[in-house]
Amino acid sequence: MKIKVIIQFLAFYIILAIPGIVSSQPPRGPLVISPQVNADKSVTFRYLAPLANEVKLSGQFLKAPVAMTKDAQGIWSVTTEPIKPDIYPYNFQVDGIGVMDPANVAFFPNERFKASLVEIPADVPSVYSLREVPHGTISYEYYPSVEGSTGTLVVYTPPGYTKERAKKYPVFYLISGTTDTEETFYKVGKTNFILDNLIADGKAKPMIVVMPYGNPAARIAEQKGLSKPADIMNRDSEDAVKRAKFFETDLITNIIPYIEKNYRTLTNRENRAIAGFSRGGGQTLRAAFNNMHKFAWVCSYASYISPAEMDKGFSHIGGDAAKTNQQLKLLWSGIGTEDFLYKGTVEFEDYLKAKKVNFKSYVTDGGHTWMNVKKYMNETLPLLFQ
Amino acid sequence: MKIKVIIQFLAFYIILAIPGIVSSQPPRGPLVISPQVNADKSVTFRYLAPLANEVKLSGQFLKAPVAMTKDAQGIWSVTTEPIKPDIYPYNFQVDGIGVMDPANVAFFPNERFKASLVEIPADVPSVYSLREVPHGTISYEYYPSVEGSTGTLVVYTPPGYTKERAKKYPVFYLISGTTDTEETFYKVGKTNFILDNLIADGKAKPMIVVMPYGNPAARIAEQKGLSKPADIMNRDSEDAVKRAKFFETDLITNIIPYIEKNYRTLTNRENRAIAGFSRGGGQTLRAAFNNMHKFAWVCSYASYISPAEMDKGFSHIGGDAAKTNQQLKLLWSGIGTEDFLYKGTVEFEDYLKAKKVNFKSYVTDGGHTWMNVKKYMNETLPLLFQ
Repeated sequence: MKIKVIIQFLAFYIILAIPGIVSSQPPRGPLVISPQVNADKSVTFRYLAPLANEVKLSGQFLKAPVAMTKDAQGIWSVTTEPIKPDIYPYNFQVDGIGVMDPANVAFFPNERFKASLVEIPADVPSVYSLREVPHGTISYEYYPSVEGSTGTLVVYTPPGYTKERAKKYPVFYLISGTTDTEETFYKVGKTNFILDNLIADGKAKPMIVVMPYGNPAARIAEQKGLSKPADIMNRDSEDAVKRAKFFETDLITNIIPYIEKNYRTLTNRENRAIAGFSRGGGQTLRAAFNNMHKFAWVCSYASYISPAEMDKGFSHIGGDAAKTNQQLKLLWSGIGTEDFLYKGTVEFEDYLKAKKVNFKSYVTDGGHTWMNVKKYMNETLPLLFQ
Repeated sequence: MKIKVIIQFLAFYIILAIPGIVSSQPPRGPLVISPQVNADKSVTFRYLAPLANEVKLSGQFLKAPVAMTKDAQGIWSVTTEPIKPDIYPYNFQVDGIGVMDPANVAFFPNERFKASLVEIPADVPSVYSLREVPHGTISYEYYPSVEGSTGTLVVYTPPGYTKERAKKYPVFYLISGTTDTEETFYKVGKTNFILDNLIADGKAKPMIVVMPYGNPAARIAEQKGLSKPADIMNRDSEDAVKRAKFFETDLITNIIPYIEKNYRTLTNRENRAIAGFSRGGGQTLRAAFNNMHKFAWVCSYASYISPAEMDKGFSHIGGDAAKTNQQLKLLWSGIGTEDFLYKGTVEFEDYLKAKKVNFKSYVTDGGHTWMNVKKYMNETLPLLFQ
């Protein structure tokens, strides 16, 4: 992004002078280049804040935030050690408050924190790199959702979708986690590039991927104009159980029918897969176990259901393992050893083992991160619909 | 957005405890609700920054930034006067530095500043409101661009596009301004909702809208890994003229053929329109005047070409006004009286008048803002392809 910023800045004066779009903004100050990925894969981060007392860099390539130092212009900067190639979230802690990097347009869509993204390129293309292969299309859709509200979906259609007009495709539903939005799998997870690359390499089947927003109850409250915090607090505590079912209801009664009406889909359970990360993984397992007639391929990315809830809510899964094994073409569970959900995931997997439910386990290093989510996608996409 | 944030936060503890996704983030601190639109259309903005010396609210609904006051928890807040309904960019000036509102997911895609968006709803739906009408689809496309690079496009297809499989549509190319990205017309301009509403009301023809990134030279430099500022500076100053032509070349030789190959389009000039805002308006006028065989409908949103450049570079436009008037079904120029490009636009319009070139002029109040861009779209979309 840094180069784009420089050229924009010069273009500004050379081609056509356009002052600040936000008219009440203060002067922009000196041009800041950030992040600057250096040849040795170290990165220089810079942030303009002449009056701040302390600015730190926080990022998932660091064990802990590191101090930045201020120059005479008020630009704080730090150069990291060389970083292992990947795409990492980071932000600046300005007097303790996390802010995005204003010199970088690549950002992490999230409802509770603001982070930017930095890509450290590998010497050969990574599984998520933009390569010169045929590209699928990402579409933003608006669909009629629960309680008369309008819902949002991000949909991937594979290369050739518009050309091969008679062909129908299997569908993969992909559910994002707490405080993430329907854009997070696309913008942070690079689902489209991972799948473009796997399809080009003959490793995954062309498929449609549907990425919903995982918290329709929040959207409904917002669209109904419930704007007083007290209203929401009450609504929230009273209707907690109802809300937990909202996502599943919306998926089964609104999202799947909308997709099957508007896209060329194969509509039997053997051509429907579901996966999710974190809270979305929990929603995935619950929606799938409650609707075994709908899904034959089920993946949990860093999530689980406790043995107690399995026995109480989903006893049919372990109770008739032979039937479960016959129904599910794939039950997949991936987790990082440093993930704070590692222990719970192991307990879930032990439960499945004890009940003789077939599943595939994938254990990697790292934590509850989108670096790992990209690995989970790259592992599971080749398994689906095969 | 505020309500979504509250429910997410509660969901956090009630449904499934998922700590911070960015593991090296400091604790999130108290929950902040912002922006909170009040019943009288005043808005309360809040920002957590216990250690900041000064926090101000900056927004296009204000003449100048206003001071915020800090409470015992370190949350700065201010409640505005009632605000005229619209969607406004705003940000917080934290010790003089502009940052997005971390409690709000609605943001302004831009390469040089970070701003969030607040919508003050009107008592009846606005032209850009999400209404219960059939919705078109927004797609993010990757296309082969100049110099072997991959370009990005945001494309709107109208409601019914996937159903009516034999129907072909006219195409409207819409170019964003300096430091904006290919997402800005969608995320800030609400082009999709404006057109959904106009189509539903029978006021605009169903059409495809193509929104490119306006600065392909910057993308090429970035994809080639020209990461040293000095390289870019040199490249930039040496190739300024070449860069100015890049956009037009990319549009004519790559973008239009890509769209016409991959979408069901009507491909004669009478079914091709072009418009742009700010720098994108200048690019629009130059691309159209250089390629009269390609476009019959041309709109400038708050931009112009100087009489000197018209005489030097585009003398055919005024030199044979009869031919120009026969070729252009629409030449449209819109500007706000407080826009810093108002004077130049008036000179451009006076030049056209003197040369007897037909055009439509639209003058409104307000400045160089996306509130006005929404008006320009709402005025011009009903005129196209009629």
